[in-house]
Parts: sequence; structure tokens; C-alpha cells
Amino acid sequence: MRIDDPAMIRPAELIEQKRNGGAHDPAELTELILAYARDEVPDYQMAAWCMAVYFRGLTGAETQALTDAMIRSGETLDLGAALGRKVVDKHSTGGVGDKTSIALGPIIAACGVPLGKMSGRGLGHTGGTLDKLESIPGFRVELTTEEMVAQLRDVGMAIVGQTADLVPADKKLYALRDVTATVDIIPLIASSIMSKKLAAGADAIVLDVKVGDGAFMKTLDDARELAGQMREIGTRAGREVTCLLTDMDQPLGRAVGNALEVDEARDTIRGDGPADFTELVLEAASRLLAYSDLGVDVDEGRRRAEQAVADGSALERYERWVRAQGGDPDPALLERAAVRRPVPAPRDGVVTRLAALDVGNAALELGAGRRTKADPVDHAVGVLCFAKRGDTVLAGDDLAEVHARDDASAARAVEAVLAAYEIGDDAPPEHGIVLDVVA
Amino acid sequence: MRIDDPAMIRPAELIEQKRNGGAHDPAELTELILAYARDEVPDYQMAAWCMAVYFRGLTGAETQALTDAMIRSGETLDLGAALGRKVVDKHSTGGVGDKTSIALGPIIAACGVPLGKMSGRGLGHTGGTLDKLESIPGFRVELTTEEMVAQLRDVGMAIVGQTADLVPADKKLYALRDVTATVDIIPLIASSIMSKKLAAGADAIVLDVKVGDGAFMKTLDDARELAGQMREIGTRAGREVTCLLTDMDQPLGRAVGNALEVDEARDTIRGDGPADFTELVLEAASRLLAYSDLGVDVDEGRRRAEQAVADGSALERYERWVRAQGGDPDPALLERAAVRRPVPAPRDGVVTRLAALDVGNAALELGAGRRTKADPVDHAVGVLCFAKRGDTVLAGDDLAEVHARDDASAARAVEAVLAAYEIGDDAPPEHGIVLDVVA
Repeated sequence: MRIDDPAMIRPAELIEQKRNGGAHDPAELTELILAYARDEVPDYQMAAWCMAVYFRGLTGAETQALTDAMIRSGETLDLGAALGRKVVDKHSTGGVGDKTSIALGPIIAACGVPLGKMSGRGLGHTGGTLDKLESIPGFRVELTTEEMVAQLRDVGMAIVGQTADLVPADKKLYALRDVTATVDIIPLIASSIMSKKLAAGADAIVLDVKVGDGAFMKTLDDARELAGQMREIGTRAGREVTCLLTDMDQPLGRAVGNALEVDEARDTIRGDGPADFTELVLEAASRLLAYSDLGVDVDEGRRRAEQAVADGSALERYERWVRAQGGDPDPALLERAAVRRPVPAPRDGVVTRLAALDVGNAALELGAGRRTKADPVDHAVGVLCFAKRGDTVLAGDDLAEVHARDDASAARAVEAVLAAYEIGDDAPPEHGIVLDVVA
Repeated sequence: MRIDDPAMIRPAELIEQKRNGGAHDPAELTELILAYARDEVPDYQMAAWCMAVYFRGLTGAETQALTDAMIRSGETLDLGAALGRKVVDKHSTGGVGDKTSIALGPIIAACGVPLGKMSGRGLGHTGGTLDKLESIPGFRVELTTEEMVAQLRDVGMAIVGQTADLVPADKKLYALRDVTATVDIIPLIASSIMSKKLAAGADAIVLDVKVGDGAFMKTLDDARELAGQMREIGTRAGREVTCLLTDMDQPLGRAVGNALEVDEARDTIRGDGPADFTELVLEAASRLLAYSDLGVDVDEGRRRAEQAVADGSALERYERWVRAQGGDPDPALLERAAVRRPVPAPRDGVVTRLAALDVGNAALELGAGRRTKADPVDHAVGVLCFAKRGDTVLAGDDLAEVHARDDASAARAVEAVLAAYEIGDDAPPEHGIVLDVVA
């Protein structure tokens, strides 16, 4: 197809081109996305195109064009110019019990490196950072850009909802993909994530790519592919990108559920968190510090992050941050569930599997998440998984604890969480939370 | 997926199931289509589903369920009960120069077998029977069912527009497929065609499956697949189905364009038509007569059809039919184009190829067809292809003649038609118009 006016793209021809395995002219793909953002291309044509992309993929040049179009569809931020320094950012592809940003931010802020993050809400079995933060009484996630910049100057940290005028094409396309079985397409995920990071003005980005049962990427190969595509997008745009490929076969840490996770993040900030979660937070923190304008390497970054935890400066920064966004950081004020039920081990043995997806779905059923965007979230409910993969247990030990709003939902959750555990005789192979680093 | 209430299908889950190569529960697929017809499933979900079907196909049971849903989405006709006899029907998958129904109907009606057909309009390079008939002054295609039945009793023939309440789901889905690059999907074509034939109450059906450059099915294998699927749908519904696989590498007959085709159909009815078109009409007529309640076999059907042509009873029937629908059958009254230009042979030789698609597109450019549903049609313009594949020509002979509304469009069409011809030294392999019969 040869057209002189890029505004004259014919969407049906582009769909057919992709369906037949062809590659789009980058300018035409950009125009398709921009026209879609302007409501000039209907949802049904984009849905057919997304499904064709599921089967045919996108080339690197196409993914780049798509990302550029996402960014060009709305406003962009330049936090670096506003703060007068290099800006680092972090993003996770989503999992079960992922409260990383809440613990990570105060630690690097305590080390002198600001983190201004735009986050999302949860959907399905994965939680969203905004929902978790809103379990803190008074916490306000809707800041203006000016408020965000002022807070970054003052306390070095902000986590806010994404503004409607940043990458609106991504917002629109994601909502469409969500209802047309076209979410799990690597180039579309890569461009969705990277367009948001680039539009928000990050100079260097640490991406936490979750792998396993509870993640979008079920295999290390898929995660490597996604990481590679995101790095390529970032590199072409002149940004530094490191991807941590991390284990999401089991929930991250112990806590799954909004207030429970905030509590665990706070514990971790003061050096009392679960081993796997602590390791992920420190690893991400050290990478972000090494990317920052502090002029330190990863080892020195790690040392400083550990120091901030040990000397209480990270906890102090957490409390200042929460107060700056209107919240009360006192953990005693977090909402608690009325009903708590233990999940006892059915036999002696060692935990060989703890299925993240099942635990995530149990928390969803308890009311911790939402099936559709309109669902309300119960901040108090959730699951604490005391026993993790490799732990030895005795029959009757508490594997986990269910936090529920009533007895009936508690009973269902106990059964679901029990089914998520596999207990065997032989310890499974050990590995750390970070499975690989793509840098 | 297991659901108790079929009205509670989740379209996104069905899309994912098909995308992943699964087979739908037939009841769920039926409900998906009926919900779509009720505007309860949005276009964007059906578009994604259609694209998934492009890559994954449908099982026989799924195609059956889809066809049933199409039929159940609207009203049905029972022409057999209305006429008190067995009803035969004929359908073509569409091609270039296909005026078969116009010639076929009067011939079998003259033999005592009624043909009541619902037809469509042209889109793209393929023409539609309704457009062709409307080139006859006064011809009216919008008859009520009562008028159609009365006319079938009286003159044994009617060709009318499809009523809006017959298979509305098919109409809606086809319009969507047309703009989402999901037209050329064999099971969707099969169910679209067969749902219309079954809803119109045909007991026995002759399907003309076009094969080649100017058809949806480009290869004999694809045509056999489509024929097999349509036969299976018909057989499961207790109908008799014969598929003629016919050549659409070159235009059918000589005439391409509305009034030109009506003229050629009339010539054929009185025994003066082109050889390939005459053969197709007589072959289809003999099959329909053999399916009818006359109690004759195919050979006897052929003899009677030839007789009706030879003794003038078919022409007499054509004229009665046209008058019954308000038209004047005098060929001198057909609109004629202002400009006629010959397409001279550039060299001596034999025609080795005459690309149907190129000729169809040339006629479309002249104004004989429509690119979008809203385009008007010029009934007078078109192309007459005097030389067909295998014909020997001398340099300067008229290969074809372009009928245009002005000199500029005529000049462009002459060039396009010339490019559709290949002239070589050796005669191409010979074959008849009917490439295969699936019965």
C-alpha cells in the first residue's frame, strides 16, 4: 500500500496486511493509533488488528512506531527539567502480593534519590499500588503535576494515579484489549509499559518482569522476550533500562491484600520483612541508585539501601511521604478484617508449591480485588502466607491465615488457599527471587 | 467453561477459547451470535472473535451452531408450504460477469419448476444480481413475501432483495467482517450462505462455487473445502445440496457490467449466448430440474432445459417474469453507454490468460460497481470481452470493448483491460467451465 497522505490510512487494509503476516509502514501504524485515539478508527477495527497481532506479532520498528504513537497521543511530563536532575523510575508487570514500590520508594528517597511514580489500580488476580495505598486512612492518590513535583522536592517521593492526558491512546487500547482477549501479547505489553515510562520523562528505568503462574509471562523465555523488547524501546529512545526477571510462581512476600501488604511493606522498610520481598526491594533499590546521579555503582547502591533500612531513615521517609499525601502512617490505624482463620497444614512435609494465581484468586474472592473496573475493593481482607516454597511444616502448623469479612467467605478462602499448597517429602530446587537480570 | 444459564456467556472468554485453538460448546456459540444480533455483544468483541476464527477455524459442530443461530436470529420463510411443492434454490459465491440466475430462472420456470430467489447487491469487483436487474427500466426488486409467492404461482419465477428480517445476524456480521479483514474465512462464508438458503426454505440447493483469480476461493482446494462445509450444513439440516465448482479465472461469458449482462443473459435464454456461460446455465438448470418434483434425472433435465431454450418458451417466460416485476423486457430500452472503445490485440497469438479480477476492477472503475455500500451504480457501463482464454487472435483484432460514460474513463479502462490479457504462442490447457461437482 502506498499513500501520500498519512491521514488517509485505510484501517481494513492495515488489518489485512497484519493478518497476512506483513509489516506495516511505521508512519502508517503511527497514524492508525493516533486516528484511533481521535475516535476516527472504531473499536471493532482495532480489536481485529490486535487479534491479528496476537497471531502475527510486530517487528521492532512496528513496536517502536506504536510506542511513539502512544506517547504522541497525549501530554508528556519532564520531571527531569522540573527537578533539575536525572530521573529514575521503576515498573512491575504485575503479580500477586507485589507491594514493591511502596517499600522501594522511601528507601531510595532516604538515600537522596527521588522517585515519582504513576501507578494503576488492580484488575483480576493482580493488585494495584493505588488500591493498596488507599487502605491508609486519608491517603490521596490524585495529585496535580505541580503537587507531585513540589512533593518530590520536599520528601523525595510520590506515588500518584496516572493523569488522563498522559498516553490516552494506551488507556483506550488497553480497555479494549481487556475485553477482547488481546492482553497477553508481548509487543503490545512492551509498548504499553514503555510509552507510560517514556511519557513520564524517566531517564533510567528498572523493570520488574514477573515470571510464572501468577504473572502474565508464564515462562522465562516469554519474560526474556518481553524484557528484550522493552529494553530495545528504551534504548532507541536514549534511556537506560534494566530488567529484573523475578519469580511469580508463588506470591511475593507473605501478604496478599491491600492493608496487609501496606503493613508488610512498612515492616520491610524497617528491616523486618520476608526474605524474598526484602531481597527484591534491595536489588531494585541498588539498581535505581546506580542509575541515579549519586555516582555510585550497584554494590555501593546496595550498601546505602541496606544502611537506610538499618538506621531508620527509610522508615522516617516513609512516614513523611504518607503524611505528605494526606495519610496517617500509624499501622494500628489500618483497617482490619473481622474474621481471621488459619489454614492448617494437612501433613508433615516440605512446601513444594504455592500457586500464586490461586492465592491471588482467593484474595479476589474475599473482596481484595476487582473483577471489573466498577467493583469496590475491601481494603482489610486478604491472605497471609506464612509457609513459602521450601519451608518445612508439621501437620497442623499454620500454613497461612485468611482475613475475611465473614465466616462464609473465610471458609471458602481457607479451602482455596489450602488447594494452592502442595506439600511433599523432598525440598524443591532452591533459587532466589531474582531469576535473571537483562541489562 | 461451564455455565448454567446460556444467556450468561462471557464473550471475552469465548474469544480467548477460540484464540487458543479450543472448540466452543455449540449452545454457547449459538448464544454468542444471538446476543450479538440483539446488540448485547459489541462489535469489537465479534471482530476479535472473527479474527481468531480466521486463524483457528471452526469445527463442523461450531459451523452448524453458527448457522442455526443466524437462522434463529430472524424470521424464516416456508416457500414449500406456500406453494405446496418442493422448492429448489441456487446460489453463487460471486464472481465477475455472473448473470447466471437471470438466465437460469426463466429456463427452469419454462420447464415447470419455480425459482424464488433472494439476491444481493454488488460490492467491490463482484457484481450483484439486484443491480443488474435494476438496469431494466421499471424493474422492482422489493417485493413483499405475499407478492413473491403470488408471482411464483403465476409466472414461476421471482428474484427479490433479501428482507431485513431474514437472518439479520448474518447481515450484521457480514457488514462487520467487510471492514475488519475477516471476509475470506471458509466456515463463516459457508454459514452465511447456507443460513440464507435454509431460512428461505429451500429443500434442495445448487451452489455455484467460483474458483480462481476473480473469486473469493483462489484454489480448487479451498473451493472444495467450502463446498464440503456447505454440503455438510445442508445435509445435517435434511436438505439436498450439489456444488458446482466453476472457473472464475476469467470472467463468465463476455459481458461485465449491469445492462450488458442483462443483455447477455437474454441472449443466452434464446440460445445465442457465449459457450461457457451457456454451459454453466444448462448444467445448473439440469441439476435443479433433477432435484425438483418433476421426477427426472440430470440427463432428462438437461434435455428439457435445452428444449425450453430452443422452442422459445424460456424467452417467453423471461419476458413474463420481467413484466411481473414491473420491468420492460425490450432489450432496446436498456441504457447504453455514451462512449465505446475497442481494446485491440497488440500481437498475433492465442489468449493464454484473461484475469477476471482485473476486468472486474476495470468495470468497477468505470462505475459499474460500488466500492462502499453508499456508492451509486452506473448501469450502462462495463466491458465486453470478445476474446477468451484459448481464442486465437490477430494483431489489431478487438479483444474487448469498453463501454464508458466519458473518454477519460474509457481510456483508463482500455489500458486496464489490455493489461488483463496475456497473449502467447501456445494454447493453454483446455477445460470446461465446470471444474468439478461435489454432490
